[in-house]
Amino acid sequence: MYKGIGASAGIGIGKIVKIKEEELNYTKQSIEDTEAEKKRLSDAIEVFIEKTQKMVESMKVTAGEQEAEILEGHIMMIQDPAISEQIEAKIDGEKINAEAAVEEACDFFAQIFAMADDELTQQRASDLGDIKTRLIKILLGIEEVDISAVPEGTILVAEDLTPSMTAGINPANVQGVLTEIGGKTSHSAIICRSMEIPAVLSIENIVSIVNDGDEVVLDGSTGEAFINPEASVVEEYKAKKAKFLEEKAALQKFVGQKSQTADGHVVELVANIGGPDEAEGVLERDGEGVGLFRSEFLFMESDAIPSEEAQFEAYKKVAETLDGKPVIIRTLDIGGDKALPYLGLPTEENPFLGFRAVRFCLQRKEDIYKPQLRALLRASAFGKVRIMVPLVTCVDELRAVKAIIEELKQELDAEGIAYDKDIQVGVMMETAAASLIADILAKEADFFSIGTNDLTGYTMAADRGNPDVAYLYSAYNPAVLRSIRNIISAANKEDIMAGMCGEAASDPLLVPVLLGFGLNEFSVSATAILATRKVMSLWTMDECKALVDEVMQLETEAEVKALLEERARS
Amino acid sequence: MYKGIGASAGIGIGKIVKIKEEELNYTKQSIEDTEAEKKRLSDAIEVFIEKTQKMVESMKVTAGEQEAEILEGHIMMIQDPAISEQIEAKIDGEKINAEAAVEEACDFFAQIFAMADDELTQQRASDLGDIKTRLIKILLGIEEVDISAVPEGTILVAEDLTPSMTAGINPANVQGVLTEIGGKTSHSAIICRSMEIPAVLSIENIVSIVNDGDEVVLDGSTGEAFINPEASVVEEYKAKKAKFLEEKAALQKFVGQKSQTADGHVVELVANIGGPDEAEGVLERDGEGVGLFRSEFLFMESDAIPSEEAQFEAYKKVAETLDGKPVIIRTLDIGGDKALPYLGLPTEENPFLGFRAVRFCLQRKEDIYKPQLRALLRASAFGKVRIMVPLVTCVDELRAVKAIIEELKQELDAEGIAYDKDIQVGVMMETAAASLIADILAKEADFFSIGTNDLTGYTMAADRGNPDVAYLYSAYNPAVLRSIRNIISAANKEDIMAGMCGEAASDPLLVPVLLGFGLNEFSVSATAILATRKVMSLWTMDECKALVDEVMQLETEAEVKALLEERARS
Repeated sequence: MYKGIGASAGIGIGKIVKIKEEELNYTKQSIEDTEAEKKRLSDAIEVFIEKTQKMVESMKVTAGEQEAEILEGHIMMIQDPAISEQIEAKIDGEKINAEAAVEEACDFFAQIFAMADDELTQQRASDLGDIKTRLIKILLGIEEVDISAVPEGTILVAEDLTPSMTAGINPANVQGVLTEIGGKTSHSAIICRSMEIPAVLSIENIVSIVNDGDEVVLDGSTGEAFINPEASVVEEYKAKKAKFLEEKAALQKFVGQKSQTADGHVVELVANIGGPDEAEGVLERDGEGVGLFRSEFLFMESDAIPSEEAQFEAYKKVAETLDGKPVIIRTLDIGGDKALPYLGLPTEENPFLGFRAVRFCLQRKEDIYKPQLRALLRASAFGKVRIMVPLVTCVDELRAVKAIIEELKQELDAEGIAYDKDIQVGVMMETAAASLIADILAKEADFFSIGTNDLTGYTMAADRGNPDVAYLYSAYNPAVLRSIRNIISAANKEDIMAGMCGEAASDPLLVPVLLGFGLNEFSVSATAILATRKVMSLWTMDECKALVDEVMQLETEAEVKALLEERARS
Repeated sequence: MYKGIGASAGIGIGKIVKIKEEELNYTKQSIEDTEAEKKRLSDAIEVFIEKTQKMVESMKVTAGEQEAEILEGHIMMIQDPAISEQIEAKIDGEKINAEAAVEEACDFFAQIFAMADDELTQQRASDLGDIKTRLIKILLGIEEVDISAVPEGTILVAEDLTPSMTAGINPANVQGVLTEIGGKTSHSAIICRSMEIPAVLSIENIVSIVNDGDEVVLDGSTGEAFINPEASVVEEYKAKKAKFLEEKAALQKFVGQKSQTADGHVVELVANIGGPDEAEGVLERDGEGVGLFRSEFLFMESDAIPSEEAQFEAYKKVAETLDGKPVIIRTLDIGGDKALPYLGLPTEENPFLGFRAVRFCLQRKEDIYKPQLRALLRASAFGKVRIMVPLVTCVDELRAVKAIIEELKQELDAEGIAYDKDIQVGVMMETAAASLIADILAKEADFFSIGTNDLTGYTMAADRGNPDVAYLYSAYNPAVLRSIRNIISAANKEDIMAGMCGEAASDPLLVPVLLGFGLNEFSVSATAILATRKVMSLWTMDECKALVDEVMQLETEAEVKALLEERARS
């Protein structure tokens, strides 16, 4: 049995296909005809772009828009004059063959990127490695590994899944993935979850341990993998797999049911989405609305600030798709850690504590915030749109946003454009400051939605992307639970909606605690809606409150987790 | 009147001396004798190192160890083979003169450093600019500007004060500084404050506005500067200067007094220090102890982990100097934003939310934490040493530290080494989590000391080093004040000392509020001891509590600040 990081849930049973990177055998050669060599290069780049474009298209279908963007980035990088001119300069100046020029130039830039202190730039170093390998293969006429051709029942094994590899995955044939590199938030992990392929990552030396054709059983929840297991293990995991699929199927009986406790206390169960295309999926999975629509996608996809019109169309589409069900749209939540050059955001030493979200938007009222808020107001004529303000730390910010909205309402009135005059404006509760002044904010906000991901990070002073402090990043910490309770109490006291859109809202261990706190709205990923509805149905409100009383007397995260695991119902 | 950033308090009156960077006139030339040219280069580098070494020595005296380190870094950079070999390679390969080679190589590396996303690496780009200019000057035989020769009563004006310039400042002759660049935490600001030279920074175009010999009046508190002012203005500011100096002198009457309110409520008034050399200054300024001794200095000064013995000597020295007065020593508070290669700390995207302080120390128990804690225990035999744990977010961390201390006590007992068996172990309260669980921590800590600098940053999710969010970074925010009050109440309830070692402790506007909250100990910079004692003497406890009642009803930072300014006493 090998142990790695369980990065995508489910049981995978199948036969191994190793993805081997062929060695690139070529020598650095002196060439005479530099023009001909540059032609070879530009032809290869053209082929590279064509192939990558095709991968992007197939990836959009199998893994989604956002994942495809990584590959689109490869096209932009190879077209970047800094890089392509450097390769040409090497051919011209040093009279070397294109393969050697590509290798040296890409290595040079990868080295510079790898020196950077931010993960994004470092990621570009690994992207450049992927680009280099593929470009040299094209120059040498070596076919790329075609993962799409693997037989049914394949377990893929690789050192890492590069973006270009994942583009070829056919989820119907791939039963699981094992790699040597990567954690829960790595590229491979995200891809596997979005394709619902069970995956165990970061198993040391797995590529050299296994052989093609070996039988494998893996559990993407526990991170366990068995190579050529005994028949009894296969049987055990076949049973687990059947149970996993059965439980998934059994959840179907919760379709069309109310989201309520065993004793009939009804709450709202809505979903988080990242783009208008995902709205349909919320309805398919019986969501009662959208609790968090991240408006960043439009800004990430574009290379200029998206126009009011483009935003209006996107928000309207979601509002219309949801057809009267609530849609909470969060205004732009972006900062210096996102490389969107057209926003002119500074790079920062601590971007999570920096110039981002509402701070940035209020400074860029004319060109960014007003067009977005106007688009939101206009979209509110086509459904139940609500506006949510992220990263609030003082009441002044909420007041400033509301003042702009009032101004825009008057503008729209003057122009005779329709909008929801009673549109709700709420606060994303995700900072320690917001929690401390929840009573003040509750008097002026129409709703709260607790962003437990950031609230946990800010409260614990722990960046969730940092593996060295991951052990602190937990909503089970008494400090985080107290903060959540404070926020919910303040909302309940002012009789405004207390919602939650962080990952805690679908944590089966926490759902009864949150119900006991008085949470009114749970916004979860669409795939978690039915499971969350099921958990709610297993508890009465009195039981939830009794559980809260027990939990809130504990002093450590470990005690909280242990108690909740002991009390868990399924 | 010109307005800039008041970066070092006091009134400066004098005549302008502009520090002009001479233009470096040389042309890029082809040279034949590359060996001779490389000899010129190595000679120049030798001169550079010699001169810089002298600057380092003089800077240690005028501005302190830490400032001198920046210049020591310049020596290390020019000795870095990556840089010096690149210059030589240019002379060899391109057969160009040393001046051009220095310029091109330094610019190349500066460009790479400037691309980085962290301020430290970016700072190295500007250091390289300073190095380049000085090295080319040496090659051209141009004398460096010698600031040490300016006449008495000089106001220095420059675009920016580079580290090499500040090394020459003689505080006796320089009455003030005006620059075009820099904020309160810039290099120039820190240097001026440490030399007690009034300074106004970031005045646009000031270098071209003024002429040598112009008369100037500047106020380093308000950030105002008057060029060739009318006689009445000069008179006015002469009076202000006299008053400033008089008030400074008048504070002397508080020497030897108790630190108490008008009605005799006594608190402890102690000082923050950064190294053992500063301990003497605390006594000179009548401090009642040390409320925060930052133990980082030993680690910053060294290029290896300082031994238990070296630490013991340093801690013992402070303990002995303070002669029975309390000395709170904070255990190593360092993270990925400090470039100490020997610690092997990862660079991080959000170092303030990363692997640092107690988190790091608990993972490096054997080689880092135990030697430090043993040194602290041993030093406790020579004075009233207390141990403070930074960045606590959960009670497990405090328990883990106390367990190590217990283990070490047994070790020392077995070895027959003396230590204070009742040594206090306290918590630096600086995270939102610590504030939320202050009641839990208070049961197991021997004291609290509130680190308002980080507490404000974490609560408001605002990095204090980031100018774009500086407006949020304020302890007057109701959220921060509530958090402080919670912490103090929890300490008072368990009857442990409630101290504060952040900048808020010496803010004259906040001192009465903190007294009203029930703060027992104020730890301030040594220069602020007497002024803080004076403020305390102006209020009765009933008045402080009445002020608290008023302040805590306010909803915004601006309202709090306005009220406190209105109520301020002097």
